[in-house]
Amino acid sequence: MAIGVGDGTSTESAAPNQVDDQAPNLSATVKSLLARVQDLEDASSIRHLHHSYGYYLDKCLYSSVADLFSGSPQASVHFLNGIWKGKTGISRLYIEWFGTLFTDGRNGPLRGFLLDHLMMQDIITVNPATYPRTAKARFRTFMQGGFHNSVNQSERSEDVPAQFWEGGVYENEYIFEDGIWKIFKLGYNMLWQADYDKGWSGSEAMKGIEKCWPEDKWGPDELVAGKMVWPETRVVPFHYVHPVTGAKVGE
Amino acid sequence: MAIGVGDGTSTESAAPNQVDDQAPNLSATVKSLLARVQDLEDASSIRHLHHSYGYYLDKCLYSSVADLFSGSPQASVHFLNGIWKGKTGISRLYIEWFGTLFTDGRNGPLRGFLLDHLMMQDIITVNPATYPRTAKARFRTFMQGGFHNSVNQSERSEDVPAQFWEGGVYENEYIFEDGIWKIFKLGYNMLWQADYDKGWSGSEAMKGIEKCWPEDKWGPDELVAGKMVWPETRVVPFHYVHPVTGAKVGE
Amino acid sequence: MAIGVGDGTSTESAAPNQVDDQAPNLSATVKSLLARVQDLEDASSIRHLHHSYGYYLDKCLYSSVADLFSGSPQASVHFLNGIWKGKTGISRLYIEWFGTLFTDGRNGPLRGFLLDHLMMQDIITVNPATYPRTAKARFRTFMQGGFHNSVNQSERSEDVPAQFWEGGVYENEYIFEDGIWKIFKLGYNMLWQADYDKGWSGSEAMKGIEKCWPEDKWGPDELVAGKMVWPETRVVPFHYVHPVTGAKVGE
Repeated sequence: MAIGVGDGTSTESAAPNQVDDQAPNLSATVKSLLARVQDLEDASSIRHLHHSYGYYLDKCLYSSVADLFSGSPQASVHFLNGIWKGKTGISRLYIEWFGTLFTDGRNGPLRGFLLDHLMMQDIITVNPATYPRTAKARFRTFMQGGFHNSVNQSERSEDVPAQFWEGGVYENEYIFEDGIWKIFKLGYNMLWQADYDKGWSGSEAMKGIEKCWPEDKWGPDELVAGKMVWPETRVVPFHYVHPVTGAKVGE
Repeated sequence: MAIGVGDGTSTESAAPNQVDDQAPNLSATVKSLLARVQDLEDASSIRHLHHSYGYYLDKCLYSSVADLFSGSPQASVHFLNGIWKGKTGISRLYIEWFGTLFTDGRNGPLRGFLLDHLMMQDIITVNPATYPRTAKARFRTFMQGGFHNSVNQSERSEDVPAQFWEGGVYENEYIFEDGIWKIFKLGYNMLWQADYDKGWSGSEAMKGIEKCWPEDKWGPDELVAGKMVWPETRVVPFHYVHPVTGAKVGE
Repeated sequence: MAIGVGDGTSTESAAPNQVDDQAPNLSATVKSLLARVQDLEDASSIRHLHHSYGYYLDKCLYSSVADLFSGSPQASVHFLNGIWKGKTGISRLYIEWFGTLFTDGRNGPLRGFLLDHLMMQDIITVNPATYPRTAKARFRTFMQGGFHNSVNQSERSEDVPAQFWEGGVYENEYIFEDGIWKIFKLGYNMLWQADYDKGWSGSEAMKGIEKCWPEDKWGPDELVAGKMVWPETRVVPFHYVHPVTGAKVGE
């Protein structure tokens, strides 16, 4: 593509010819830089979003957690062997279930209740070709949870172990809606949980969820198979291929 | 702004007119790209800086830790319920207190003393509008500390638990001084500490610092209220708003 | 620097003179942006690569781990006090040794065997001046490993502790080969390992590797000195200088 094609004889044409060589490339280069910088910024925003998710969970800020999600009816949380769908399902899980189970209706931390949700090891893949833009990401969590001995038994949820470790892997989907990255599908794969006293050698096999909503007032909208938990093991499917061979891994 | 303005009649003018349409945008686009790339690089430098802080703490390299700070008299460390101010205060904390408490004056690791200071879950917000540029960041640490059984009691500090876990959140401020990002305010919020044998269920309530320097030779310059530690819980204020709603969280 | 030097009298010359002022800077600026964005993307690719390494190790996907390395005969893994060299050495370590030790020849996770390999705290330094491009990076791991009680003694490797924590630091080198970042030198420094029951206070001193291949069928190609393990301590040399002072740290 030519910008200012001279006849090659005038002295003026020399300079435009230099521009000839450069400007179109420059314009194309800048366009490609815009896309590349956008991709880096998107990945940074998604890391920020998901790290915030971890910090909010730490402190039982369940309405702040629920607000991280897209309002789409297709938005969902996959947790244990259940799927909670749309704004109603997501609120049922975080605000109604966790908010009652862990903090008895309070949106914030309780004295003597620990639920640190460490986030790390991000692998974020933005898809700039969809409209709106979407992304997938893998993260890992390592958790410390339970009650301080000074918390009365009557103030504790029966469903929360007294003191435990937990390890798991997220495979999530995100959507860029109204100029903001939001969680579209949160896929948390709890892989093991261990009483502090016994460690993972002594974990009892965990039961899955058995009933959906409305039979269970906090239950998921749907149950799925294959979400095995320790001492069973499984490879959480990777959203991305092997970075060197390009092969699907673990399938 | 025009690059090669023809009169609109010559064949040559066609191409310059294309440049006309593009060049001003191009220049503005490149300018905005410069700012965006700077922001990404700044965030990367700050992550690098703070991850280094963690690696140096691991190995009791206290003079290297102190050197990460701005030389400003306003630079400070907020630790437990104390504030150590300026180069003198920061040296008193790291080099005099920790360096004596943990490693008896040595700048480097001691045999049989562990103090791993894992850093993760960064949320970094650069403010390009200040001069010099400033930034804020949230990080999390998870620690493993204590002594190997082969270390004699007489060689151990009384103030360090024999073997412990610790969890905490940083909210820090950084400044770009002399072309280098430095720590301006380090705000470490230790949230819980637990003996290995008992876990966080059995933590004893920690006492805060009671005396300032010079009454305490390693004490802070100032004491602050509200820095509660486990089994009390609190939300460490977020330097950033909710990424979706834009609301202040946890207040 | 001039593009299109007019005589200053023609009206046409005005525009080229504007180009004089801007275009060369624009072109140089875009060129520098290209290099800066490349550097950010390279760091992101390397983080992705190494985080994948951690996820594959978790699940005993040893052939996927080995495939992350450069095919160069100079590629290597430094583990404990041994060096495994080239594709043959790297396969011997991961696929033959670990694949037999941990999973009895299976490429994938075994029921009741945990080996979570958390990756965090990256410091990545790309060297754009080499051809091909190279990079160095520091990472940290924190591990949870061992067997569930339901796994029979006869199905367990004698060399794997029943239930353990492990902490260590990576200092790695990477190479950009055939358009893909690959691991060139993996330098894993296991710094401590602790039985779950006793913690790091009660760790027994670990023995190093004593024999090379082929005397030991899974042994390294070479042994090195100085790789002390807990309760000995050491500073793993930093590939980068102190971010503020520019000094070498810990030497």
